[in-house]
Amino acid sequence: MSESFLPRAIKAKILREKHEQLPRIMTDNDIDCWLIFVRETSTTPDSSMNFVVGSEVVAQSAFIFYLRAGQLFKTAIVGNFDADTERGKGLWDEVIPYELGIDPLLRNKLHDINPKQIALNYSTDDYSCDGLTHGMYLVLTKIAPEFVSRFVSAQPIINAIRSNKSETELGIIKEACRITEEINDQITSTLAIGQRETDIQARFHQEVSKRGLGFSWQREQNPAIDAGVGKDFGHVLPQDHYLTTQGHTLHNDFGIKIHGYCSDLQRMWFFGKESELPHELRHAMDVVLEAIQRAAKAIKPGLQGYEVDKVAREYIIEQGYEEYKHGLGHQVGIMAHDGGGMLGPLWPRYGNSPRQIIEEGQVFTIEPNVKTKNHGMVSMEEMVVVTATGCEFLVEPRKDFIYIYSD
Amino acid sequence: MSESFLPRAIKAKILREKHEQLPRIMTDNDIDCWLIFVRETSTTPDSSMNFVVGSEVVAQSAFIFYLRAGQLFKTAIVGNFDADTERGKGLWDEVIPYELGIDPLLRNKLHDINPKQIALNYSTDDYSCDGLTHGMYLVLTKIAPEFVSRFVSAQPIINAIRSNKSETELGIIKEACRITEEINDQITSTLAIGQRETDIQARFHQEVSKRGLGFSWQREQNPAIDAGVGKDFGHVLPQDHYLTTQGHTLHNDFGIKIHGYCSDLQRMWFFGKESELPHELRHAMDVVLEAIQRAAKAIKPGLQGYEVDKVAREYIIEQGYEEYKHGLGHQVGIMAHDGGGMLGPLWPRYGNSPRQIIEEGQVFTIEPNVKTKNHGMVSMEEMVVVTATGCEFLVEPRKDFIYIYSD
Repeated sequence: MSESFLPRAIKAKILREKHEQLPRIMTDNDIDCWLIFVRETSTTPDSSMNFVVGSEVVAQSAFIFYLRAGQLFKTAIVGNFDADTERGKGLWDEVIPYELGIDPLLRNKLHDINPKQIALNYSTDDYSCDGLTHGMYLVLTKIAPEFVSRFVSAQPIINAIRSNKSETELGIIKEACRITEEINDQITSTLAIGQRETDIQARFHQEVSKRGLGFSWQREQNPAIDAGVGKDFGHVLPQDHYLTTQGHTLHNDFGIKIHGYCSDLQRMWFFGKESELPHELRHAMDVVLEAIQRAAKAIKPGLQGYEVDKVAREYIIEQGYEEYKHGLGHQVGIMAHDGGGMLGPLWPRYGNSPRQIIEEGQVFTIEPNVKTKNHGMVSMEEMVVVTATGCEFLVEPRKDFIYIYSD
Repeated sequence: MSESFLPRAIKAKILREKHEQLPRIMTDNDIDCWLIFVRETSTTPDSSMNFVVGSEVVAQSAFIFYLRAGQLFKTAIVGNFDADTERGKGLWDEVIPYELGIDPLLRNKLHDINPKQIALNYSTDDYSCDGLTHGMYLVLTKIAPEFVSRFVSAQPIINAIRSNKSETELGIIKEACRITEEINDQITSTLAIGQRETDIQARFHQEVSKRGLGFSWQREQNPAIDAGVGKDFGHVLPQDHYLTTQGHTLHNDFGIKIHGYCSDLQRMWFFGKESELPHELRHAMDVVLEAIQRAAKAIKPGLQGYEVDKVAREYIIEQGYEEYKHGLGHQVGIMAHDGGGMLGPLWPRYGNSPRQIIEEGQVFTIEPNVKTKNHGMVSMEEMVVVTATGCEFLVEPRKDFIYIYSD
């Protein structure tokens, strides 16, 4: 069986853990009804379904969670062909199948519940809470126009349920990090000067396939591989015409998926001995590593994400570098970029995400970078889980470049 | 390399074929500007990007196609880390990168173009044209409120570009069908009575993995495997407690993905000799096969999808069976359910899809079923491509059950 897929028993366990979190989360956020409204989720997925539904649907489907006197009730209204799958999960208080159209069943159910609000999966700030398509929003306003004034964003619910990693989830993410480093080490032993970026990426792909793993993000850009000094590192495709070169660096950004959960780590190699490392690269790497340590020491529940970003960003500027052009870190889970609160600056493109409160059980990357004048970009990326009092690295952080040379 | 991914050269070819179709499609539909507005497409994908962008993005991104004096211009506004990837494609007249926020660049570009309409990817009827999330719709209305009155659905553009299979696409889909049948035949040789549905599915999964293929839809439900007479066939998970049984059928619905394109075929086995087949199953299968042939003969460009559905549906009712509770067929492409016009009845849940005009180059399934009183459901699923005057099967249609017995 391929390791990139979540075995049914583990998925069922995570779904149970998440359903157990829901009454507290909905009560805390004063939301008495959450409606997931979807169709053909293999084309237009709603990522929140991973935590509370756990399979795909074809026909228009409504998954409704609502509180009555503090107790959670759960209804699935699905096309007749999806009904057996939902019944088989034992997650729902009622499964209502339909043949011709969902409209009257959904409208009646909403009238039965008569909630104060109906939380829907849309968000201007947070893509991970934005699974409702605009077309389905319009469909819903036609089905139940009398409820439109009660629509609110389900962002607080989705963020909480997605961010708050259960024990089962954390165990899988740690394993993803361990395997990522195992593959990094394996590829290290094959590196030499004169190799193409594309060929190095192909070797990573082989190791991933051999183990039956998936990719944390699009395979063509995973790992990102950068052997060229002139290249703007990031989500750039590897090229045939950039070769590993004596006295230069190699850089990757690599994430695998196991049992549906992701890793996301950056590593750097240097072609030459440590004693041959240009001073500029030595200084840049020291600053990056120190920025990571400072950020990790700053993280604790109750802070806002931008406060942690600031620690790393200001340190890097103090050391004479340009500030990095992105956030310090993002959450990781079923996606490499898992949404929710981030460790980022208060820039328009990040919306409200950097203001969200850091909570125990969240998993973040820490990935500062600095630009050198003559040797390209230097960066590393580590992953941490927030604890009650601070954070812990999910895999031993790297302490330096990996040096490639033959004696 | 895994066969489930589209090699770069083939993807580039398909992107060029699709970009070449665009001026005609936009002119035909009197739409002078099409805007794809997305972010973090690995979480919230817009499936239209497969045909005209061809990679994922992280930051808020706008891909704009606009006509000036009949000539097509193409602009990509993307986050700085996505800019090199877009430039590298050679598809865009201009790539505009940004660091902090897309807002002013996008607003200015729309004012430059000053289009009559702005076609956006939303649709109440068609999920495959509904890649714009409601959150991103709200973001856009904040960025450019002065253009809201010009927003229209991009459905006609997306349907045309997605449905009208290029030669490259058709070649890949045929290969997907061929391999699907190859695997069906291979599994046939391993079938015997007393096997669990779950174990049979696992053997299909092995064959798919071995070949490095992907799945047309969610792996857990692919193939759907039905050995139980009492089971409502469809998108139902295989079960441990249903075993293949002497004198009963086995049924699958199986689709693989190669180079990003899908197959979707249903096949049936009978455990026993043809001479032992119950009359009820004989009759049901004959009706299903004849319904498929009649539908295939009816298909031609210019008809509406519901007219073809009607041919099969009425024939089945005439033969004394209940009508099937779904559409006769859907389009197949990068997804098994590829959206666009369908061969379906005029039921509310199908919206306008069955009224769309059938066009040359579209690929459809034909999948009627009938319910027997004592032997469960009987159905088959074939795939056809619409030609100038009718249609052609993409793989030789099956003529009967596959009989499993030992002499």
